[in-house]
Amino acid sequence: MRIGILGYGNLGRGVECAVKQNDDVELKAVFTRRNPADVKILTPGVNVYSVNDVEAHKDEIDVLIICGGSATDLPEMTPKYTKYFNVIDSFDTHANIPQHFANVDKAAKENGHIALISCGWDPGMFSLNRLYANAILPEGNDYTFWGKGVSQGHSDAIRRVEGVKDGKQYTIPVESALESVRNGENPELTTRQKHTRECFVVAEEGADLAKIEEEIKNMPNYFSDYDTTVHFITEEELKKNHSGIQHGGFVFRSGVTGWNKENKHVIEYSLKLDSNPEFTSSVLVAYARAINRLHSEGVNGCKTVFDIAPAYLSPLSGDEIRAHLL
Amino acid sequence: MRIGILGYGNLGRGVECAVKQNDDVELKAVFTRRNPADVKILTPGVNVYSVNDVEAHKDEIDVLIICGGSATDLPEMTPKYTKYFNVIDSFDTHANIPQHFANVDKAAKENGHIALISCGWDPGMFSLNRLYANAILPEGNDYTFWGKGVSQGHSDAIRRVEGVKDGKQYTIPVESALESVRNGENPELTTRQKHTRECFVVAEEGADLAKIEEEIKNMPNYFSDYDTTVHFITEEELKKNHSGIQHGGFVFRSGVTGWNKENKHVIEYSLKLDSNPEFTSSVLVAYARAINRLHSEGVNGCKTVFDIAPAYLSPLSGDEIRAHLL
Repeated sequence: MRIGILGYGNLGRGVECAVKQNDDVELKAVFTRRNPADVKILTPGVNVYSVNDVEAHKDEIDVLIICGGSATDLPEMTPKYTKYFNVIDSFDTHANIPQHFANVDKAAKENGHIALISCGWDPGMFSLNRLYANAILPEGNDYTFWGKGVSQGHSDAIRRVEGVKDGKQYTIPVESALESVRNGENPELTTRQKHTRECFVVAEEGADLAKIEEEIKNMPNYFSDYDTTVHFITEEELKKNHSGIQHGGFVFRSGVTGWNKENKHVIEYSLKLDSNPEFTSSVLVAYARAINRLHSEGVNGCKTVFDIAPAYLSPLSGDEIRAHLL
Repeated sequence: MRIGILGYGNLGRGVECAVKQNDDVELKAVFTRRNPADVKILTPGVNVYSVNDVEAHKDEIDVLIICGGSATDLPEMTPKYTKYFNVIDSFDTHANIPQHFANVDKAAKENGHIALISCGWDPGMFSLNRLYANAILPEGNDYTFWGKGVSQGHSDAIRRVEGVKDGKQYTIPVESALESVRNGENPELTTRQKHTRECFVVAEEGADLAKIEEEIKNMPNYFSDYDTTVHFITEEELKKNHSGIQHGGFVFRSGVTGWNKENKHVIEYSLKLDSNPEFTSSVLVAYARAINRLHSEGVNGCKTVFDIAPAYLSPLSGDEIRAHLL
């Protein structure tokens, strides 16, 4: 299977690494909005092209993995490139998924391509676990926790505060809340009871630290509904200790069965990831395999992880997966 | 969707309870090898028939859930009843799955039916998690732990020991092994390091307790490779404290990504179940919905959980699952 990568940031580089780990997958080309000469990739012998030349390569690529941002890139890019390629994206603005699905589905069907949107871990693997667990335990409660991990949006919000030079924000699930859910206690949890937020801030010289801390802690939407801790550190410390891109989280379904609902069950799925973009990329490559196969069976239109039978993700045959994984 | 249950033990009764929790599913009939007059079920207005009369009801039932044992019942029953019905079973003898699949596939294709085998939690949900995690992280290690839960086979083995009147055996995962795997340490674990076995034994009056304990602890295959604890208790205590049918377990995939495999990731899926048969039954009913839909789309032959796109399990529409679960 020949893969193209559109957009060579953390996610695109993660796809490149994931391709290397899968013997049946080949990286064919990288497309960039920057000057191609300025983009150095890791894989020897693979060309970097301008995104403007993408159409010329449409017959060389089985699946194009679009590594753009959900806010402005993907709503425009995914329908556009579905005209030339089978595509896959990691669109993660939950509220806009129905509209994005409709746009991509139209483009895919008009051009006989298959497109998979909102792939990764949330949306993605977490969504799958919500679906499976809800189908199995129709009477119950869902819980999703994120972290410990860096939230880009919250880190950006910190950096917009006056007097802040740089900053990183960690979202951390509250251990006692996890335990309560894990024990099947079905707690009603407020926002504050589910996650705490920890901020590492580099202040400008002479800035009013107390004022910065107040402003962060009281910021509506981002911090005011949480117990937030603010640590002031040096630029060197931030670089040394907080440049990681770890993430993860937990999906629970806690439900009951029995004639009188007398038996409790807890399903838990969790991820602990050193690199958020590399894990997401690994999910994308597995699903690229799946949609390439489905396309070769004549399937087109827009899909999500819900529509893909698990066997399509594996490089192994049906006989092999039944013998070794069932 | 109209469901038939074949075999009314713990599993069949669990299916009956699960049907009650799903508004789009109706219990149509229960078939038994016993005298139907002796079988009292929970659902008002549903008839119990002899298994010998099953063919007469073939047009009243969309999916027949076969609740038999894997050792001798299912290898014979599933291919047999696939002639008349779409069927689903929980065949769990891992080593014989390829043969069972071939037999059922032949019968299903000859008769235009769809059959799903080896459904439940292991094989079933655990298998799915092994497959997804292996596809996402091709370089890594798999770990499966079972328990805490009652092992029927080991409880039976205890009861065969001379001087034992009754007994129950719990399989318990070793906490330090779980923690090591969870931390991404990729330990090499022996059988003894993964699980311990705890036995609750009711001895015959005057029996030699030391001899019983020795015999249990040294029993090859069942106990000799494990750290085993034996507790002697009264019949009343056994009945009062050890008649539960709890179970559960953990599936881990611990893998690496990155150009130089520098990033670690741990995927964990776990189940904590008050009732092993009721949870299995709940999985069976969700998959019965899936195969009924697939059959209405013209699909036939033998399938496993690997072949079923997740969306088919949910009573919700594609629009609904994209809006609420993705």
